[in-house]
Amino acid sequence: MTKKTERTVILAYSGGLDTSVMLHWLKHDQGCTVVAYCADVGQAEDFAALREKAFGSGAAEVYIEDLRGTFVRDFAWMALKAGAVYEGTYLLGTALARPVIAAGQIALARQLGAATVAHGATGKGNDQLRFELSYYALAPDIQVIAPWREWDLKGRSELIKYCQKHHIPTTASIEKPYSIDHNLMHCSYEGGILEDPWNEPPADMFRLTKSPADGPEQGLDMIIGFRSGEPVSIEGVELAPIAMLERLNGLAGEHGIGRVDLVENRAVGLKSRGIYESPGMTVLHIAHQTLETITLDREVQRLKASLAQKFAEMIYNGFWYSPENVLLRTLVDETQQFVTGEVRVRLYRGNVIVTGRRSPYALYNQQLASFETDHHYDQRDSAGFIKLQALRLRTLAARLPDANAARTTKSMPAGSLAVSEGGAI
Amino acid sequence: MTKKTERTVILAYSGGLDTSVMLHWLKHDQGCTVVAYCADVGQAEDFAALREKAFGSGAAEVYIEDLRGTFVRDFAWMALKAGAVYEGTYLLGTALARPVIAAGQIALARQLGAATVAHGATGKGNDQLRFELSYYALAPDIQVIAPWREWDLKGRSELIKYCQKHHIPTTASIEKPYSIDHNLMHCSYEGGILEDPWNEPPADMFRLTKSPADGPEQGLDMIIGFRSGEPVSIEGVELAPIAMLERLNGLAGEHGIGRVDLVENRAVGLKSRGIYESPGMTVLHIAHQTLETITLDREVQRLKASLAQKFAEMIYNGFWYSPENVLLRTLVDETQQFVTGEVRVRLYRGNVIVTGRRSPYALYNQQLASFETDHHYDQRDSAGFIKLQALRLRTLAARLPDANAARTTKSMPAGSLAVSEGGAI
Amino acid sequence: MTKKTERTVILAYSGGLDTSVMLHWLKHDQGCTVVAYCADVGQAEDFAALREKAFGSGAAEVYIEDLRGTFVRDFAWMALKAGAVYEGTYLLGTALARPVIAAGQIALARQLGAATVAHGATGKGNDQLRFELSYYALAPDIQVIAPWREWDLKGRSELIKYCQKHHIPTTASIEKPYSIDHNLMHCSYEGGILEDPWNEPPADMFRLTKSPADGPEQGLDMIIGFRSGEPVSIEGVELAPIAMLERLNGLAGEHGIGRVDLVENRAVGLKSRGIYESPGMTVLHIAHQTLETITLDREVQRLKASLAQKFAEMIYNGFWYSPENVLLRTLVDETQQFVTGEVRVRLYRGNVIVTGRRSPYALYNQQLASFETDHHYDQRDSAGFIKLQALRLRTLAARLPDANAARTTKSMPAGSLAVSEGGAI
Amino acid sequence: MTKKTERTVILAYSGGLDTSVMLHWLKHDQGCTVVAYCADVGQAEDFAALREKAFGSGAAEVYIEDLRGTFVRDFAWMALKAGAVYEGTYLLGTALARPVIAAGQIALARQLGAATVAHGATGKGNDQLRFELSYYALAPDIQVIAPWREWDLKGRSELIKYCQKHHIPTTASIEKPYSIDHNLMHCSYEGGILEDPWNEPPADMFRLTKSPADGPEQGLDMIIGFRSGEPVSIEGVELAPIAMLERLNGLAGEHGIGRVDLVENRAVGLKSRGIYESPGMTVLHIAHQTLETITLDREVQRLKASLAQKFAEMIYNGFWYSPENVLLRTLVDETQQFVTGEVRVRLYRGNVIVTGRRSPYALYNQQLASFETDHHYDQRDSAGFIKLQALRLRTLAARLPDANAARTTKSMPAGSLAVSEGGAI
Repeated sequence: MTKKTERTVILAYSGGLDTSVMLHWLKHDQGCTVVAYCADVGQAEDFAALREKAFGSGAAEVYIEDLRGTFVRDFAWMALKAGAVYEGTYLLGTALARPVIAAGQIALARQLGAATVAHGATGKGNDQLRFELSYYALAPDIQVIAPWREWDLKGRSELIKYCQKHHIPTTASIEKPYSIDHNLMHCSYEGGILEDPWNEPPADMFRLTKSPADGPEQGLDMIIGFRSGEPVSIEGVELAPIAMLERLNGLAGEHGIGRVDLVENRAVGLKSRGIYESPGMTVLHIAHQTLETITLDREVQRLKASLAQKFAEMIYNGFWYSPENVLLRTLVDETQQFVTGEVRVRLYRGNVIVTGRRSPYALYNQQLASFETDHHYDQRDSAGFIKLQALRLRTLAARLPDANAARTTKSMPAGSLAVSEGGAI
Repeated sequence: MTKKTERTVILAYSGGLDTSVMLHWLKHDQGCTVVAYCADVGQAEDFAALREKAFGSGAAEVYIEDLRGTFVRDFAWMALKAGAVYEGTYLLGTALARPVIAAGQIALARQLGAATVAHGATGKGNDQLRFELSYYALAPDIQVIAPWREWDLKGRSELIKYCQKHHIPTTASIEKPYSIDHNLMHCSYEGGILEDPWNEPPADMFRLTKSPADGPEQGLDMIIGFRSGEPVSIEGVELAPIAMLERLNGLAGEHGIGRVDLVENRAVGLKSRGIYESPGMTVLHIAHQTLETITLDREVQRLKASLAQKFAEMIYNGFWYSPENVLLRTLVDETQQFVTGEVRVRLYRGNVIVTGRRSPYALYNQQLASFETDHHYDQRDSAGFIKLQALRLRTLAARLPDANAARTTKSMPAGSLAVSEGGAI
Repeated sequence: MTKKTERTVILAYSGGLDTSVMLHWLKHDQGCTVVAYCADVGQAEDFAALREKAFGSGAAEVYIEDLRGTFVRDFAWMALKAGAVYEGTYLLGTALARPVIAAGQIALARQLGAATVAHGATGKGNDQLRFELSYYALAPDIQVIAPWREWDLKGRSELIKYCQKHHIPTTASIEKPYSIDHNLMHCSYEGGILEDPWNEPPADMFRLTKSPADGPEQGLDMIIGFRSGEPVSIEGVELAPIAMLERLNGLAGEHGIGRVDLVENRAVGLKSRGIYESPGMTVLHIAHQTLETITLDREVQRLKASLAQKFAEMIYNGFWYSPENVLLRTLVDETQQFVTGEVRVRLYRGNVIVTGRRSPYALYNQQLASFETDHHYDQRDSAGFIKLQALRLRTLAARLPDANAARTTKSMPAGSLAVSEGGAI
Repeated sequence: MTKKTERTVILAYSGGLDTSVMLHWLKHDQGCTVVAYCADVGQAEDFAALREKAFGSGAAEVYIEDLRGTFVRDFAWMALKAGAVYEGTYLLGTALARPVIAAGQIALARQLGAATVAHGATGKGNDQLRFELSYYALAPDIQVIAPWREWDLKGRSELIKYCQKHHIPTTASIEKPYSIDHNLMHCSYEGGILEDPWNEPPADMFRLTKSPADGPEQGLDMIIGFRSGEPVSIEGVELAPIAMLERLNGLAGEHGIGRVDLVENRAVGLKSRGIYESPGMTVLHIAHQTLETITLDREVQRLKASLAQKFAEMIYNGFWYSPENVLLRTLVDETQQFVTGEVRVRLYRGNVIVTGRRSPYALYNQQLASFETDHHYDQRDSAGFIKLQALRLRTLAARLPDANAARTTKSMPAGSLAVSEGGAI
């Protein structure tokens, strides 16, 4: 390995204050040749300006790569199919973007023969895990620099001073009320004034959604079509993945849909408060879950649901590129073959109201048909069905009548013990 | 056992068409002495009229018992604490009422020395399991009559003819668009015109909630207080369980909250479509889950969440009085000790918007305080934390570089392989 | 469908007392044309004699099919790869043979245009589920006759009388101490004198294994080779699946290996006592599990282990041909790609002693190598690794020092509270 | 806090080479006042000599505390009741001893007003987690010194040189073939010559067990009595916990029982090879599991089994003093109420052969009794029981006959497709 290669760093560069300072610090303080890598995951950036800024901060080269296609197809759609929701509320928009970007960095490092990558995440958050676990899984010998864990700079004001001192172009101001992460799946907000979980977030913070109260008085009905678990059409019009998500972000955002305000458990062991806007993904998640209710077998639904929590935790904690995650993705794909059909939803002031679902592969419809003729179902079968299920409960109750009585009394209606008085009503 | 006792049946009587016919049929066709048992679980019935009707249909005795207290305290609150939601959407209002009623019946049977109980559920639904599994668990030698599975009457029109023939008082008409079950937790609708899952339910069907669009333009902010996982106050005013749920049903119903429209998997193996209104419980469920996010340890949250699905299935399938359910209830109670605090929500046209949460036992707050001084958290610790988590991924990647590369390519961004062109943007 | 076809029944015929009587009963009492179907799954039967017997009992046709290949390859090996063990002890030999036989019956029914199948299992056991759930899954409109649940014959002596009366050839005697099921995977014993779980089974009952005490004084060392999770060689000599299992049955049986004596939970809700001999599968199970410890990633091992219990239950309860089982089989196969290597075991008087394991894909070996140079592992990383894992525990302990102290006291060493006296020792 | 207190360290002292050097290093290099703390967990040490040695190495005070009682009662018995086995084979003897010792250290630190504790575990193993996570959970502000992660000494030979240089009494020799940990539950061996997983461990290594081949020709039958899940008697003679375990260690060791040789996944992310001897615990584990098969309800058994893996992982990874572990312990205790009865086992040359089990609370026995009269079981009930379970499979098969056929073909016996030839046999 040549000396040059050893010192080349591929920095995940966003153009913000932190990575601008890092670019300069890596070059001047650490003596690295810095390649700025910026992945487009739908963050609505002026990439031409960003390119200029990177060179202005000392970048040797700047690579800007459009990863929106893979981000939506391979990550967002996979999470959708899996029903992945972290702690019941968070749709994982940031957690899914990090491995996409990390893989882009590693591919570039390989191409350029660079042995080192760097990222702008702090030492208290989840993103450091998502970046670094992806790096190590894809390139086990990679060297990683995480400046926030290594330099002596503390906090935003010191970064701004650093910029002023070193003539790094920045528009950052010292007070920044909260931090933001934006991509095609969502926009997230955390830190600063949001840290008190008793405070409501400011109304003017939201970027992708109107307040429910500001949505149009008239709701919007729409039919979303799915094929093998992936959304393919709106109102019968086929849309490619990026267009699908952009369009739904626009429509659902207009109707005030997809805001969540939560306290979550970070991978590093502390709780943090986050606000997320995921307008399009929220609609898709509800529609997809709905379609599964008529196309998946009950036990498949249950097995899948029991693993979805684990799957979401893996993604949240940075383990996208892990063998256990690959396993679950295989399993999820296996379930989606017949998740094809349509769901009708009404978007109205924050609500996603399901008003219909249908599928050529519905397990629901066919049963209906067959039951009318009672070909498949004889009500008398239920007697045996219940009797055998009751067998172990009866055996148990008979084991030790008094002990059991004592146990079940806990949960037996108190009123019933005085039932004799009931007769007098 | 005397002859009389052997032939006495305690019938779970609702006053509707089905149980009215059953009362008569049990007496005249089966030769039983029928005791009508009606539990008040908040179904808003005219119990005096119901009592007359039961005697008019041939009841030897009528017992009406107020079980609302135990229903809310021991069943609704327990499900709330457990976070029990069947298949992600159904709050189990009917499934929780059945074991309450069944236990009341069994207690009455014991008191009267009766050896037989009967219920009005059909042979295709879930309620037969909920009634009978409860009966057998509480009284292993009980005899059960489920007329719908035994008589030759088929469908509603034959029941009405039976009433006419036998002069049973009824106001039932032949066409009934759907069936209803109502109690303090919810109102449910299924069957009839609802059976086509592509059809939206009729707007005039709903009893407990306004349509979101008909909610007041002005949302309602309220603070709900919890103690050890149970709701105890609204806006600082303490309310007993029944009053709490009634009040929230009123408020949330006014704001169009708590409707769900779903296709569920019945215990008997078929899928069915149901519509549920659970205004108060919906608000409580969201508030309770929110309070847990700041008061429960992460791993406790996860363990609890992983068992909540199972717990909901047990209840749905009729296994409230099972040893495995008792076990999980013990575990749930053990988690709730510190789930004490307040949640602020805004009710607005179908939305329950969480705007704040606080607790004297918050695990969130204390960390915040301590992190400022960096007493508990050194960012440099993250490096080792990540390095050791990456170890197995690196070992794996090194095992067979090519095979692994092949495996991960599946999910590697396609764009990144063409990253060189990225530099040209 | 012609009348003839409607009355043709494919009976799973074993040549024993029960199915001999059934064959006659189906023909003469039910008016069916009976086709006797006998699958060879390794039960060591004289099939020529069995064929004569079937015709002698009234069979219209007799089909004998060798299913040993699929039984070992697709069922036994799959269970092996999955690590499927019911309730921690039973290797599922009978449970896996039933779906093989059922599928053979259904294929024959299709070929002959028959609409009905029948089996000899009783109404109290598991096999009725394994046969019938397989039938229905493979042929949803099939008609099933389960004579034991339908006729009026009760018990063994009535069957023998039936044979005498109808001149059915049988060698059965009235007293039969227990029932037996034998195939390539195992031999099972239950019922009769085994029903008292305090009684040791008789020494002369066992067919496939010597008593451990009767094994040779000299143990046998052997190296078993696996490829992608399937056993392929003994001592370097490649063996096809049937030969592999036969050979191991012989060797392990000689050394007294593979007996288990247990009380299990039947699918129908009662507990039963069973004795199983699975000499070859026991050795393979231990060897396979051992090889996985060096070739599977930790989290893959855990995910797999957490699903193995469920997988075993599915098979035990008759759900081999279910979508959830297919899902898990897909997942299992996905894990086995690198489970290739060798395990050395010593067979000695009931013991299978693992004495070595190695693999070209070992995750163990490569780490060892790399650790010597400390390239992948810096002991100082552990400090951060532990610190961050401790964070939530410290936060929790700080929440309410006294309450927590009270909680942990339960499990705190009592001795330590009196530690001061310790100093005086 | 006074200066003196700040510098007092409670060292978990074993008297071995590592902690002897640490004692000196903490005192002379780190300037600490060192209190040597040694917990007796059954390691068969000469504590008087150890005390002298500690003073000889520079200890300011020496505390020796007998924690055997709590170790067996509260830790070993709890793991037994839980059925905790790490990765299917390891009974957690060392993992359970560490939190006992750590709690003793913390209690002593509190008593002496010390703010710092230290332990002798390395930075590559599991014990560092078990010590430190226990410390932090019990005393969130404790300071921890882990010398192996901090000093510059590398390996055994440098420690011996350190001893020679500083006149620390030691009998250690440079070559040490493997490391040992011994307590009442087990003796473990790892490292050194054991690191090659293809090598069989040396025959003379084992301390607690004879080789199976050296066990007496005559096996030993014994009846072990349990009360609420805890072992209380052998052959009807009641024994206190310590005596029970000591006695079984002796008997089972004599018969060659309880050796396991495995490769396990360490908490720090690498695999390691370990050999364990747990003679007494092995017998107890098998006997306890057996007793549960007749006294626990099926669904309780399954729920418990599904959590046992998680429970074992928590203990292995050092999370005994975690809220999730406390939760599971509560649940385990709740299951054991009726696990009372006797199990008869035969110890014979490495085998623990179960020959009988009985309980006054057996769920098995009572069913037997009731089935004779067919009061609880009607075989005809099975028909409905199976029919309804088959319903979803039939619906699925009917959905898309060809697609499903294709899917199930994968696992359908190949032989059956050629069944027509079968007829020609």
